[in-house]
Amino acid sequence: PITGPEELARAYTPGVARVCLAIHDNQELAFDLTIRGTTVAVVSDGSAVLGLGNIGPKAAMPVMEGKALLFKQFAAIDAFPICLDTQDTEEIIRTVKLLAPSFGGINLEDISAPRCFEIEERLRKELDIPVFHDDQHGTAVVVLAALINALKITGKKFSDLRVVINGFGASGVACAKILLSAGIKNIIPCDTAGALYKGRTNNMNSVKVKLSEIFNPEGLSGDLRTVMKGADVFIGVSSPGVISVQDVRAMAKDPIVFALANPTPEILPEHLKGIARIIATGRSDYPNQVNNALCFPGVFKGALACRAKDISEKMKVAAAHAIANYVKDDLLSEDYIVPGIFEAGVTEMVAEATMKAAREEGLARN
Amino acid sequence: PITGPEELARAYTPGVARVCLAIHDNQELAFDLTIRGTTVAVVSDGSAVLGLGNIGPKAAMPVMEGKALLFKQFAAIDAFPICLDTQDTEEIIRTVKLLAPSFGGINLEDISAPRCFEIEERLRKELDIPVFHDDQHGTAVVVLAALINALKITGKKFSDLRVVINGFGASGVACAKILLSAGIKNIIPCDTAGALYKGRTNNMNSVKVKLSEIFNPEGLSGDLRTVMKGADVFIGVSSPGVISVQDVRAMAKDPIVFALANPTPEILPEHLKGIARIIATGRSDYPNQVNNALCFPGVFKGALACRAKDISEKMKVAAAHAIANYVKDDLLSEDYIVPGIFEAGVTEMVAEATMKAAREEGLARN
Repeated sequence: PITGPEELARAYTPGVARVCLAIHDNQELAFDLTIRGTTVAVVSDGSAVLGLGNIGPKAAMPVMEGKALLFKQFAAIDAFPICLDTQDTEEIIRTVKLLAPSFGGINLEDISAPRCFEIEERLRKELDIPVFHDDQHGTAVVVLAALINALKITGKKFSDLRVVINGFGASGVACAKILLSAGIKNIIPCDTAGALYKGRTNNMNSVKVKLSEIFNPEGLSGDLRTVMKGADVFIGVSSPGVISVQDVRAMAKDPIVFALANPTPEILPEHLKGIARIIATGRSDYPNQVNNALCFPGVFKGALACRAKDISEKMKVAAAHAIANYVKDDLLSEDYIVPGIFEAGVTEMVAEATMKAAREEGLARN
Repeated sequence: PITGPEELARAYTPGVARVCLAIHDNQELAFDLTIRGTTVAVVSDGSAVLGLGNIGPKAAMPVMEGKALLFKQFAAIDAFPICLDTQDTEEIIRTVKLLAPSFGGINLEDISAPRCFEIEERLRKELDIPVFHDDQHGTAVVVLAALINALKITGKKFSDLRVVINGFGASGVACAKILLSAGIKNIIPCDTAGALYKGRTNNMNSVKVKLSEIFNPEGLSGDLRTVMKGADVFIGVSSPGVISVQDVRAMAKDPIVFALANPTPEILPEHLKGIARIIATGRSDYPNQVNNALCFPGVFKGALACRAKDISEKMKVAAAHAIANYVKDDLLSEDYIVPGIFEAGVTEMVAEATMKAAREEGLARN
């Protein structure tokens, strides 16, 4: 509080000039001497908000405000909601770059695919602070964590799995990518046109063409039901009702089903009792909630603490292992493969792991 | 605080969707249901920071943070410091427009002249929320307030005054304009090339050409010393030492000297004892401090409270009268023509007057 002239002279003119000049001489000091070191922008264009779709920037504000609240609650990070009055990819990129002097990190949120991929990729390249599209990587990191622990229970190996991912929005693509980098070779992405394979012609875009080269090595075609036959893992980031009990029955032994559509999962857990071995959803009222809040607070906390220039794939994988390792072996069970978001110490473990990975990669400035 | 799933479900998904949809249906509700109604952006490009000049956006951050603190302290307004990594006029205009969905008002700060004039003018036209360049109008409003009260003491009339303004940066131009709109006809703006008059050719730019048509109706030319002869009021928003005791002696009876260069005034008050009738500076350690903090907190408070679409000239003049009227007639003296910034109730009086003026002009939405 500024209640008299002395405090005013310190916080504002003339006292503030000393702080300005120190940063002018050494720009890195901005992280110590301004809010930059502890402040993240939560940036959206309102084009893909929760289950609501393209509701625009003003109507998207409450979600960004809620997200800022979570940053504060879980990681003591000051986050500020920025909703941009444009949905033009280049303008969003340029604007975020112009805003960067005020922030230590950028959390992209609720920007529609495929634009979100280019926006994040470009900003990661062109800025020297962490840029993280939570809809992609937040979900992907927690999915990887959950799968690591699910495999401990079923005894299956990453390299032997066949994983079907349904839904090719921001989080579906990121899930596929992180699972690939974690060593799963046989990943079959699906969308409403069925399995994505090299040479598919219907319902394609440039992102899908690129990804069809990387995934589905056996070139399986057909609808979701067809490719689910014999699969070990089903990950849904799509919509309610797209799979049935019969589809899960047709999977390999010990089916792992992550039905993450929110608020209504692809299939309700009560319908899979005795059929799926492990079930996770995005909901807090079922066991095994795959919730981004396990990931982004700790990842940003770790990245800000070491002033990372980027949040790399290795840092994300390290965060996933930290979340998985939080669950002690003697507590691990079909109904407890990831911690609850209110369990103490998750954020700190994730932050430590993220920071360690950043240091090992030479991405830390501090 | 979010400490459990119920609170989380209210503040974030799924509870937040209800708030989003309400705004989607009626965009005006953003002022009630998000931070927009009470949040101002303090925007700079770091091109003209205090006395430090063009130190760039990162080094300018501490000033914007200090300003945000003043908004909070004096008006309970949440202000957020935004330093833009560009000094291109069009890019600044565009970026601020794109940021507007997050804010209820824009306070421009420390942007160099003459770019600041176009940036403010365009943003005022193109946005439907208040845009206020404090370096211009904050100073101008308080100067007008101080002059209103100075005239009560000297008994002179606005219409009869000859006012010399030295310094033609952001605040000099704004002072000249507000005094003109307050009824002073004979205003002579000066810069380092002397008096500005119609047809002057040296040291001109497009802004000065325009202003040379409006001011200095007698077409006086010559250096500052020459035009100060016989002037009633000298207002300096320039640099230390530009006027001398002799210059003030040559003014009309009861000279009024506002020596506002900061931190060192054009001339020190101790040198004008018995020579000038009334002296004001920008400093807190002399009487009559002309401080923007008397103006901007109340002006924004009033504008936000009635959701004004703009901060008009009439609203600024109303704010000046409110500041002047805060000083009761029986307390008014040569050493007390404006309240101190820590005196209780100034912000509230200014807010009331600003809001009333906005309503009268049909600029209020609420």
